[in-house]
Amino acid sequence: MRTTSVGVFKVATTGPGDVSGLMSMIGSGAIDPKSILAILGKTEGNGGVNDFTREYAVAALCAALAPRLGLSPEEVEQRIAFVMSGGTEGVLSPHITVFTRREVEGRPAGMSGKRLSIGIAQTRDFPPEELGRSPQIAQTAKAVKAAMADAGIPGPADVHFVQIKCPLLTSDRVEAAGARGNKTATTSAYASMAYSRGASALGVAVALGEIAPDVRDEDVLRRDDLFSKVASTSSGIELMHNVVIVLGNSASSVSAFEIGHAVMSDAIDAAAVIAALESVGLGFAPQAKKGRELVNIFAKAEASPDGSVRGFRHIMLEDTDISATRHARAAVGGLIAGLAGTGAVYVSGGAEHQGPPGGGPVAAIARLSD
Amino acid sequence: MRTTSVGVFKVATTGPGDVSGLMSMIGSGAIDPKSILAILGKTEGNGGVNDFTREYAVAALCAALAPRLGLSPEEVEQRIAFVMSGGTEGVLSPHITVFTRREVEGRPAGMSGKRLSIGIAQTRDFPPEELGRSPQIAQTAKAVKAAMADAGIPGPADVHFVQIKCPLLTSDRVEAAGARGNKTATTSAYASMAYSRGASALGVAVALGEIAPDVRDEDVLRRDDLFSKVASTSSGIELMHNVVIVLGNSASSVSAFEIGHAVMSDAIDAAAVIAALESVGLGFAPQAKKGRELVNIFAKAEASPDGSVRGFRHIMLEDTDISATRHARAAVGGLIAGLAGTGAVYVSGGAEHQGPPGGGPVAAIARLSD
Amino acid sequence: MRTTSVGVFKVATTGPGDVSGLMSMIGSGAIDPKSILAILGKTEGNGGVNDFTREYAVAALCAALAPRLGLSPEEVEQRIAFVMSGGTEGVLSPHITVFTRREVEGRPAGMSGKRLSIGIAQTRDFPPEELGRSPQIAQTAKAVKAAMADAGIPGPADVHFVQIKCPLLTSDRVEAAGARGNKTATTSAYASMAYSRGASALGVAVALGEIAPDVRDEDVLRRDDLFSKVASTSSGIELMHNVVIVLGNSASSVSAFEIGHAVMSDAIDAAAVIAALESVGLGFAPQAKKGRELVNIFAKAEASPDGSVRGFRHIMLEDTDISATRHARAAVGGLIAGLAGTGAVYVSGGAEHQGPPGGGPVAAIARLSD
Amino acid sequence: MRTTSVGVFKVATTGPGDVSGLMSMIGSGAIDPKSILAILGKTEGNGGVNDFTREYAVAALCAALAPRLGLSPEEVEQRIAFVMSGGTEGVLSPHITVFTRREVEGRPAGMSGKRLSIGIAQTRDFPPEELGRSPQIAQTAKAVKAAMADAGIPGPADVHFVQIKCPLLTSDRVEAAGARGNKTATTSAYASMAYSRGASALGVAVALGEIAPDVRDEDVLRRDDLFSKVASTSSGIELMHNVVIVLGNSASSVSAFEIGHAVMSDAIDAAAVIAALESVGLGFAPQAKKGRELVNIFAKAEASPDGSVRGFRHIMLEDTDISATRHARAAVGGLIAGLAGTGAVYVSGGAEHQGPPGGGPVAAIARLSD
Repeated sequence: MRTTSVGVFKVATTGPGDVSGLMSMIGSGAIDPKSILAILGKTEGNGGVNDFTREYAVAALCAALAPRLGLSPEEVEQRIAFVMSGGTEGVLSPHITVFTRREVEGRPAGMSGKRLSIGIAQTRDFPPEELGRSPQIAQTAKAVKAAMADAGIPGPADVHFVQIKCPLLTSDRVEAAGARGNKTATTSAYASMAYSRGASALGVAVALGEIAPDVRDEDVLRRDDLFSKVASTSSGIELMHNVVIVLGNSASSVSAFEIGHAVMSDAIDAAAVIAALESVGLGFAPQAKKGRELVNIFAKAEASPDGSVRGFRHIMLEDTDISATRHARAAVGGLIAGLAGTGAVYVSGGAEHQGPPGGGPVAAIARLSD
Repeated sequence: MRTTSVGVFKVATTGPGDVSGLMSMIGSGAIDPKSILAILGKTEGNGGVNDFTREYAVAALCAALAPRLGLSPEEVEQRIAFVMSGGTEGVLSPHITVFTRREVEGRPAGMSGKRLSIGIAQTRDFPPEELGRSPQIAQTAKAVKAAMADAGIPGPADVHFVQIKCPLLTSDRVEAAGARGNKTATTSAYASMAYSRGASALGVAVALGEIAPDVRDEDVLRRDDLFSKVASTSSGIELMHNVVIVLGNSASSVSAFEIGHAVMSDAIDAAAVIAALESVGLGFAPQAKKGRELVNIFAKAEASPDGSVRGFRHIMLEDTDISATRHARAAVGGLIAGLAGTGAVYVSGGAEHQGPPGGGPVAAIARLSD
Repeated sequence: MRTTSVGVFKVATTGPGDVSGLMSMIGSGAIDPKSILAILGKTEGNGGVNDFTREYAVAALCAALAPRLGLSPEEVEQRIAFVMSGGTEGVLSPHITVFTRREVEGRPAGMSGKRLSIGIAQTRDFPPEELGRSPQIAQTAKAVKAAMADAGIPGPADVHFVQIKCPLLTSDRVEAAGARGNKTATTSAYASMAYSRGASALGVAVALGEIAPDVRDEDVLRRDDLFSKVASTSSGIELMHNVVIVLGNSASSVSAFEIGHAVMSDAIDAAAVIAALESVGLGFAPQAKKGRELVNIFAKAEASPDGSVRGFRHIMLEDTDISATRHARAAVGGLIAGLAGTGAVYVSGGAEHQGPPGGGPVAAIARLSD
Repeated sequence: MRTTSVGVFKVATTGPGDVSGLMSMIGSGAIDPKSILAILGKTEGNGGVNDFTREYAVAALCAALAPRLGLSPEEVEQRIAFVMSGGTEGVLSPHITVFTRREVEGRPAGMSGKRLSIGIAQTRDFPPEELGRSPQIAQTAKAVKAAMADAGIPGPADVHFVQIKCPLLTSDRVEAAGARGNKTATTSAYASMAYSRGASALGVAVALGEIAPDVRDEDVLRRDDLFSKVASTSSGIELMHNVVIVLGNSASSVSAFEIGHAVMSDAIDAAAVIAALESVGLGFAPQAKKGRELVNIFAKAEASPDGSVRGFRHIMLEDTDISATRHARAAVGGLIAGLAGTGAVYVSGGAEHQGPPGGGPVAAIARLSD
């Protein structure tokens, strides 16, 4: 079994087109551009249909990395897994998290315990009529297992965050399915994002044994008791397959980092955030811990679909001026930032089948200073 | 010295015009309408210039209380101090907090310690040219002292929250000043709200000895090192004087409630929120404490004027789609709700001279079950 | 046949709670409060789910009119048909239009032509499972005919605007239907507004012979070739039946006013607006016409569902920051205001089966000075 | 005197990063990339401080044009004048207008009349303390005259639209001025945009003799009787000098296009829009004219600062949910689109000293088919 060293770098940005922080770390040798496997970012758009900061950020990163990698911008986009989540409401701060991986000779003598590992895999392309349905679930489950193998993680217990990028429907795609005599799960582009996110999350749950594999098409977006505790999915127009990024701990990693997670049962579940911090040896006010340092927190947020949080009505779903996802990110972001001591955390909206209704997964990565 | 009994009732609302919760408590005898001294509410508008939920809520309450008090709606509005704060972004939940006060015979034997007390006072009317300037500061300071006396609180140490309602400028008022040959602090209605809030908060700080009394006109909205740790001010078009509500603990109160406070140094100051809870014998997850129960938390929120929180950039001040006050309430509301275990808390925006820049006062009221 | 005199008064408001303009016209004797039949208003909320300016305006009007009519506010709300449309984006100006009607002795000798007439009727209450379906269509058609009779308008050719207020579904209502073993057209409150508006508009089309009466449940919100050219419908939570207001011209009216209409085929159909003005003897720059004066224009606006206007893409349906109805009212309001010479016009959003897709009815009322 | 041929191409875009329309016209030979002098675009952002669609669009165009011009993207940005205006509210449609210019041998025999001409010039860099003040006004006036000479337009009567791109203040720039002992016109980045736009527009007015040259610093943003009838200015962070684009008609042009203009006296001035169309031989419903075809309309929109339009109150300046510039573009865009028959028109917000208060310039370009 190969041994890998995984690096994690959090870099603040001054705008969606800002690549100067990453470029300067590459310039100083802190990051080898060839080792970059994935970049997860928070950009300052509205996180909705017309949020162009996501594609702008990816375009800027690809253009900047292209000469360093001897590739065209298009080839960079194929090589590195980019996941940009729009929306830094409230105290959330725009930034990117860069994951690097390189193979090493083996573990140094005396290193014990499992360390952060990352694996990537992808499904085959989906015809539009498969999105939001059983085939997307089954293929995603298969890819999650492949990504776990790529990460050197043998079992579900060591998987702590699974980020997925998945397709959505456009009118062209709906028509293409229709021309074959097939109906798609929905004809609305916006609604298809939720279907695709939901089916992808269910695929994670199946792969990790969190739910039985016999999920039916009609369960997607309806059976809210079916969910994964570690899935985080986001849909984008630029691909027709799922890209799966598995983050966990592995005995074959010599990384200086560790990951853990917990599940927020609702949007004000402070105890879960603290549990996630404790899972990597930190806690409330994580700056204070000796020998360990918080790198980032990754969480999903959503407005509770029943219109209330612990018995009190919220107004997120009835506000015609601000979308519910913006409300939810702002609130959950405020809580996590308060407990973590920083607003530069990854809080993303749209949590279908990702944690219980109104809640969501929360993972933490710490750097070990030993 | 008279002895008072102060009651505090938090009532959820289903909309800005909903008075059913309060009316049913009056119907059941839980609240004597004649004892109502003040009502502080969170309504679900945008909290900005065109937030009509505040005046709608006051109109609905006055219309409903009028027959119970044998008064006209206009007289009810004169008799009870109404302060409605718009904006329940994120997990915040619309509600009103009703404060009642009645005189009692004296303390029962065996009761020890200070208990929640409330006092009210008001300034004379201000000519428009005094708003946001020294006269408003000095007159407010005088009224704070009167309200302290009304509350039976001899010294600043026992004052934990001072809510003020203050005037703003309109074009008519600016013109009236001009006709007298006088200039107002600003000609913009929106900007005058900040001036009036700021000067009122400085008046609190002077009264409580938090700052020296020699504040100059040019310090208002400029010297951000001058602030009160317990002031919460909001401006409204319907009055030309300041109404001052002082909340604190007093040996002359036999209330079943206690109040305490802390100061958030920034928008993610979780430790300060916990300190406020601890000041009334509670703490993180306050539901768990024996013999004490959280009633409500009162806090001010604002986007840090320097554009960052603990070194990380926030985007609240540059967002043309969502006003900074809405961002700030959502984020601080998320944090406080997480630590308090409920979204039915009073988090209000616009914190000029109320706590340090980017931070603000946070007070907690607990009910003692003994 | 009785003869009626119908009055139309457009009154500007300074806010949703402002009743001073109407009260002063009542005070001066210009309006007899007992003759008020209907009030249509534009209020300055967002026109969405959480637009409380509509109910606030109705509450304020009922409270103010109650003593003048010797009724309670609740009774005023039963007696007068109130229709408040939220949203005065761009140059649109908040105002109310008051319709009065009284019986007179008969036509003066020498009066010729048909004049403005108004009639009102209502359906029976609908059980929730009938909303958005055939029964609502059929009952509405019946009520439209009754309202035409009330207005003294024998045939469809003289009907120029039919304003309907219709119910919506709430979770309680959906549950009540479920308890009877029945499914509702949708379970979403927001979506039910469109269903109810759509079915009501189809009822108008059936009554006026614009479409065949055999509309099926599955045609509602789907067959966009089925529509009325004069229907304007809006749904509200406060009723379970439809209220129908028919506006047209009648030989039995001695009113000083006349009404006409046209149909906008898309959101930039300037020619249709001019045709509506010409239908009442006015035209572009209507102020200039001798002997006739524009009172108000009533129109429906919507974002074209196919995402384009005359071949050019619009972004209204993809904007996560501003709802499509706000965009549409602002744009159509800008056009009509420009052609009419005033922003105090009634432009309302949500035009399901009201005019062709992306377009809508536009009616004009003129005062004859002779 | 040289003779030029100026081309104008309006190209629809499918998003801010879409360059496919322009690239395909270059591919087909319809546009010679080397002849491109300026590109004015409407992008679908919010048009405010955090509108990143403008810089994204410029970045995408520069990247796409670079290989065609044998330049780096940075050099393309220096060579071509890019002006992106954010905000396509309502029926407005995202597009770019490409201006090309090449020298030709001289006028063909028989060509009469003046034709569309374009000229470009720029000022020296401004130190921050000069922005919004007399030096910016004077230098801009000088550059306008240089651009007129470049366009071959000897006198002001033939100038119909002057588009200017101008700098703004940042905190760094304010500090740099302070370090020299100088104060800037304002310390707010947002406010500095208005100062810079206003001073630049006054510079145009001075150059064209519309106002006397003795404008004082304190007149900027205060004397609203001082304005240009043809200036359209927008500020951007990426430059420290003014770029001036003059559009007019010249006897030395053999262009197939003609330009004219009018001035909207308020936001509903339909007559002015029609006058602008008539100035180039078109009129209401311009598609109908023989031998002439509308290419584009260029206009500035703003919410009337006095809060009303022709005596009726508007709510644009009090809306905390939608910025006034978005309201104004939507409304004026609706009017112009209705009169022009297309939403693909250039309507831009922020009209300080550009037309009278609440109004603005409106220019039209027509293609002559003869």
